[in-house]
Amino acid sequence: MKAAVIGTSGYTGLILLRLLANHPHVDEIIPVSSSQYGKNILSIDPGTGENIINKCTSTSAKCISIEEAVKLNPDIVFACLPHLKSAVLCKPFFGTSIVIDLSADLRLNDPLVFEKAYNAPVSNPALLDKAVYGLSEWNYAKIKTADIIANPGCYPTASLLPLLPPVKEGFVKGICTINAISGISGAGKKLKEYLLFCERTESIWAYSPGTTHRHTPEIQQEISLINDNIKILFTPHLAPLKRGMVATATVQLTQQIIDKDLQELYKSYYSECRFIRINQNIPSSRDVWGSNRCDISWHIEDNTLMLFSAIDNLIKGASGQAIQNMNIRFGFPEESGLAISNQV
Amino acid sequence: MKAAVIGTSGYTGLILLRLLANHPHVDEIIPVSSSQYGKNILSIDPGTGENIINKCTSTSAKCISIEEAVKLNPDIVFACLPHLKSAVLCKPFFGTSIVIDLSADLRLNDPLVFEKAYNAPVSNPALLDKAVYGLSEWNYAKIKTADIIANPGCYPTASLLPLLPPVKEGFVKGICTINAISGISGAGKKLKEYLLFCERTESIWAYSPGTTHRHTPEIQQEISLINDNIKILFTPHLAPLKRGMVATATVQLTQQIIDKDLQELYKSYYSECRFIRINQNIPSSRDVWGSNRCDISWHIEDNTLMLFSAIDNLIKGASGQAIQNMNIRFGFPEESGLAISNQV
Amino acid sequence: MKAAVIGTSGYTGLILLRLLANHPHVDEIIPVSSSQYGKNILSIDPGTGENIINKCTSTSAKCISIEEAVKLNPDIVFACLPHLKSAVLCKPFFGTSIVIDLSADLRLNDPLVFEKAYNAPVSNPALLDKAVYGLSEWNYAKIKTADIIANPGCYPTASLLPLLPPVKEGFVKGICTINAISGISGAGKKLKEYLLFCERTESIWAYSPGTTHRHTPEIQQEISLINDNIKILFTPHLAPLKRGMVATATVQLTQQIIDKDLQELYKSYYSECRFIRINQNIPSSRDVWGSNRCDISWHIEDNTLMLFSAIDNLIKGASGQAIQNMNIRFGFPEESGLAISNQV
Amino acid sequence: MKAAVIGTSGYTGLILLRLLANHPHVDEIIPVSSSQYGKNILSIDPGTGENIINKCTSTSAKCISIEEAVKLNPDIVFACLPHLKSAVLCKPFFGTSIVIDLSADLRLNDPLVFEKAYNAPVSNPALLDKAVYGLSEWNYAKIKTADIIANPGCYPTASLLPLLPPVKEGFVKGICTINAISGISGAGKKLKEYLLFCERTESIWAYSPGTTHRHTPEIQQEISLINDNIKILFTPHLAPLKRGMVATATVQLTQQIIDKDLQELYKSYYSECRFIRINQNIPSSRDVWGSNRCDISWHIEDNTLMLFSAIDNLIKGASGQAIQNMNIRFGFPEESGLAISNQV
Repeated sequence: MKAAVIGTSGYTGLILLRLLANHPHVDEIIPVSSSQYGKNILSIDPGTGENIINKCTSTSAKCISIEEAVKLNPDIVFACLPHLKSAVLCKPFFGTSIVIDLSADLRLNDPLVFEKAYNAPVSNPALLDKAVYGLSEWNYAKIKTADIIANPGCYPTASLLPLLPPVKEGFVKGICTINAISGISGAGKKLKEYLLFCERTESIWAYSPGTTHRHTPEIQQEISLINDNIKILFTPHLAPLKRGMVATATVQLTQQIIDKDLQELYKSYYSECRFIRINQNIPSSRDVWGSNRCDISWHIEDNTLMLFSAIDNLIKGASGQAIQNMNIRFGFPEESGLAISNQV
Repeated sequence: MKAAVIGTSGYTGLILLRLLANHPHVDEIIPVSSSQYGKNILSIDPGTGENIINKCTSTSAKCISIEEAVKLNPDIVFACLPHLKSAVLCKPFFGTSIVIDLSADLRLNDPLVFEKAYNAPVSNPALLDKAVYGLSEWNYAKIKTADIIANPGCYPTASLLPLLPPVKEGFVKGICTINAISGISGAGKKLKEYLLFCERTESIWAYSPGTTHRHTPEIQQEISLINDNIKILFTPHLAPLKRGMVATATVQLTQQIIDKDLQELYKSYYSECRFIRINQNIPSSRDVWGSNRCDISWHIEDNTLMLFSAIDNLIKGASGQAIQNMNIRFGFPEESGLAISNQV
Repeated sequence: MKAAVIGTSGYTGLILLRLLANHPHVDEIIPVSSSQYGKNILSIDPGTGENIINKCTSTSAKCISIEEAVKLNPDIVFACLPHLKSAVLCKPFFGTSIVIDLSADLRLNDPLVFEKAYNAPVSNPALLDKAVYGLSEWNYAKIKTADIIANPGCYPTASLLPLLPPVKEGFVKGICTINAISGISGAGKKLKEYLLFCERTESIWAYSPGTTHRHTPEIQQEISLINDNIKILFTPHLAPLKRGMVATATVQLTQQIIDKDLQELYKSYYSECRFIRINQNIPSSRDVWGSNRCDISWHIEDNTLMLFSAIDNLIKGASGQAIQNMNIRFGFPEESGLAISNQV
Repeated sequence: MKAAVIGTSGYTGLILLRLLANHPHVDEIIPVSSSQYGKNILSIDPGTGENIINKCTSTSAKCISIEEAVKLNPDIVFACLPHLKSAVLCKPFFGTSIVIDLSADLRLNDPLVFEKAYNAPVSNPALLDKAVYGLSEWNYAKIKTADIIANPGCYPTASLLPLLPPVKEGFVKGICTINAISGISGAGKKLKEYLLFCERTESIWAYSPGTTHRHTPEIQQEISLINDNIKILFTPHLAPLKRGMVATATVQLTQQIIDKDLQELYKSYYSECRFIRINQNIPSSRDVWGSNRCDISWHIEDNTLMLFSAIDNLIKGASGQAIQNMNIRFGFPEESGLAISNQV
């Protein structure tokens, strides 16, 4: 297996290098970057170890261009590129390599919804039909045969995994309020003042409320595929940690249920899923730090259902789920190269 | 003015010492503690400066007992004691000193509600009628003449200040979902494993959801005094910072409103309030770090109103509001001894 | 008193606004910025309160240009500008206003030393003779009459205050190794990748060791004025906090001394200094967070003396000491507008 | 291979469970704890994944007693117990299992030195001769045949690895000043006020300076074995991060050397060592977060040599080095189960 990582200077790209280096079925890693072209990945991140370097056999661990990478015929391509650029720059790989796109370019089925959220038309609309939304546990069957996988956003992953089973089962209705809190790495490695250490430490901040965040239509889309009478109101918050995300959802029940009903519900959907854990207690993000798990719990209050989930935004929320999708697509054991316990 | 602070080892007590040291109308500070009896406050907190020491004239800056403090006839007593103990231990001061109780003992009017929330009967039920709920901007008139002031909890302060005006005006109805996020100091200085640095850094955690947190009946009580058809579902979260709190509330509108309606609404309630600021942008907790301000903003999404607020949980959420209440009670300028700008 | 702050977008400028707003002898604040020209300071920092706004009477709290500020005849000018620019841009104020320069431009007496450290010639060499090095406790007499004050760097302040008395008394000799650790705000509010939250959290880093940091010649200069046989080796470290600095110095003794000798030594130098505290225990940076104090302690190990100090790098290490120097220069009580207790 | 971990509630024990779960040559993990006796390890740490649970075959993942563990005949025992207790409680395993003791009980060869540092006599003096000091890269040959391995402290590991080669080669002399900075997990999971989140965030603190820290005699012992004219002065500092440690050493050179000399020196000692990296730039602790690496660099200033190193205090400074020692002892590849790249 040869795996190319396009965009090796951001957090998702760097984490992918680490996960691929420990993956038992990946023999070669191809680092690709335009901004870091020609640089050794060790000079980009001094934390890089020889386990990564040693798998970069064709490139001597130097970042190469997309054109050069195409010639190396990677079996799989992980695109860690900005939205609007990803589906364009990856063109040479479609059809010859399996592509897992970690950007938002191919997540939204409706071009109008995309355009409204991203202030620009879909860059490669012909691909929308072909791309499978890579929420691993939910679209398992489709991912198995997909050649293009649109890797979900971190907020949608944390929101959808607890919410989809009760939606599917018809347990909930009406407005679903989701408040999520993310570590700072969710915003990427951008030179913005609000991402400086001194601006984020000792601070919490809500932003892009209601339907104004770009991840909201993504959550709404997957819910509406099942029940289009549920409306998502999603509000993200930033807290001063690097990695970690929790989501707290509140929604009305259609019927009186008890704990046991939910235990059975989640069991019926997720009992085979090694990366989903149903908890009695509300999970904290530390429980899944560095792990590909999504931990889930709930609270019933009269006619209201509250759902709680925790993921590592860089792992299950990005690079880890991308590896999981690769594992599914190539028939490897689903947990290959991924941590099940937390790492902190 | 002589001010006694009972309980000088916790965070609210220590902050009160600092605020009182800079207060232009307080001449003497009396530190009271049973666990630290006889110790100089400098040995409790090496951050203590001589501005505090110098105001502890009667006690040579050593912690004295409640009995000794009674004899010094303080004009005002700040009780920073655990709930269930506070209203009992402060008995000797009732009737002779103004008492501001930072515990929960006198916040809930209904003894049954208290007993359910705190797993114990109200310790001093005779006082319930006499204590005024010290949400400064809302109970200003009553605080002016109160001899016992029940200082609000941090979560209720952050939740009620944005919510009360639209509730009062009849703008909202039904279930009001409040998700709040707090810095760790909100849990006090307790030797609990979950409060260790290594347990809280790089972690976010929801706890006590729905109606199970002790602050929920406090929020519900103040809302129900105005409209008893609104139900509060409150879920707190802990994030890895020392000080800071934000609340995000979601509630249905009774009528179609626009931004201007809310601008006018809040103006009509708060234009004279120096510690409330109505923001165009969603406030972050850093904006009010060390300040006694509560910053408020909102977002309208169809028939849903979302409210955002930020406070410093130790200042406006505890010790600062206690000073504000003292200022109101004694007729000092409301901002005496309190910061309006953030301090970070 | 009218005070102008030139450079209101960085951390030292913002802190100065807060300190000046609470200063009893400053009536008017003039915010000056080229990059933020015309903007209200509230839009630069939403933490700004009306106590600051209300003192910006001439400018309606909008940032004005240096030319405009000159016309307002400020009594004192605080220059929070980058080195190499400060002494040039402040030209119009020299001679008419007292200038406190928080940059490095006028700290080094020897132009060759400056040029080597900053890779550029001194921008305004004519001023070197006139500028007084503003280490408040040490140059008190000169500061009282200075028209230009070169405010010391944070590392030099933390290093020199404990070290100067034993150097002056002839207690120490040879190589003095100073290892200091700083919070991230010491690096200013710059859009550099290494200052991002995710790059600095969970990390410690030594940099610019030996004599390669720009603050080393500043420390060496002040030591050499007293004893030019002592050589400073200074190594700074960055740790993941916003504010705080400690310095640990190790130097050989010239004679056998005991604790009592040092107690008397420091007493003789600093007993009148309200912002210096001699501690029995090693101070932590939290003890002085938000305060203008420098806490000092020591440890004697055979013939070796170890010195420990803690300051808030933004207060005693920058803006607080600048205010202290203003107080000294204008004959105000030295602690006016400054905190003696920590604020956290 | 059966591996027992004695003491599964602290940080080193929990990390060992994770490392052993991913170790290709360990089939069974035996969790042992008296304080958590009978509890499932999942209830001790909800971050525990089924990869750990599944390897706890004999105990159903419940903590058992030492007596019960003895009967399971572990091949190797990792003792994560407090000093003074470890060498006593592990008695039943000596002679039958290989024991790696992560406490200090068997690190110091001289009982008098131990007694002075730990205020108590060596608990099991008969073992001192048999225990090998487990600094993997330095005592490789002895570790290969050792039945008892005294795993080094974190500060000694970070201090000794850069220092031993120049000491051995006779490059340095006199007093060696080491200033080290540690993340909070180095202090363990103890219910002490100074370890609370609110006490450690935004603070830096030096403690136990000179020769007063318990790790100083450990560093001194290993240096003195080679050159007993070098005196170690060691001062640790705490900074607000969970994991990470850097050491900055300053020592006089015996001869004029240049960079190339050191490059060759370290190459000759460490070129075969996969977990030691010689850096051109000063390493930061983040570079090795979660990795078993020790990164090293230096700076020459006239006759002074400065050495810089970075480790993860819980990995190379504790549990990781313990696994490395197991790998050496059992002839597994040295990097089995250990990360070479950072994990953050």
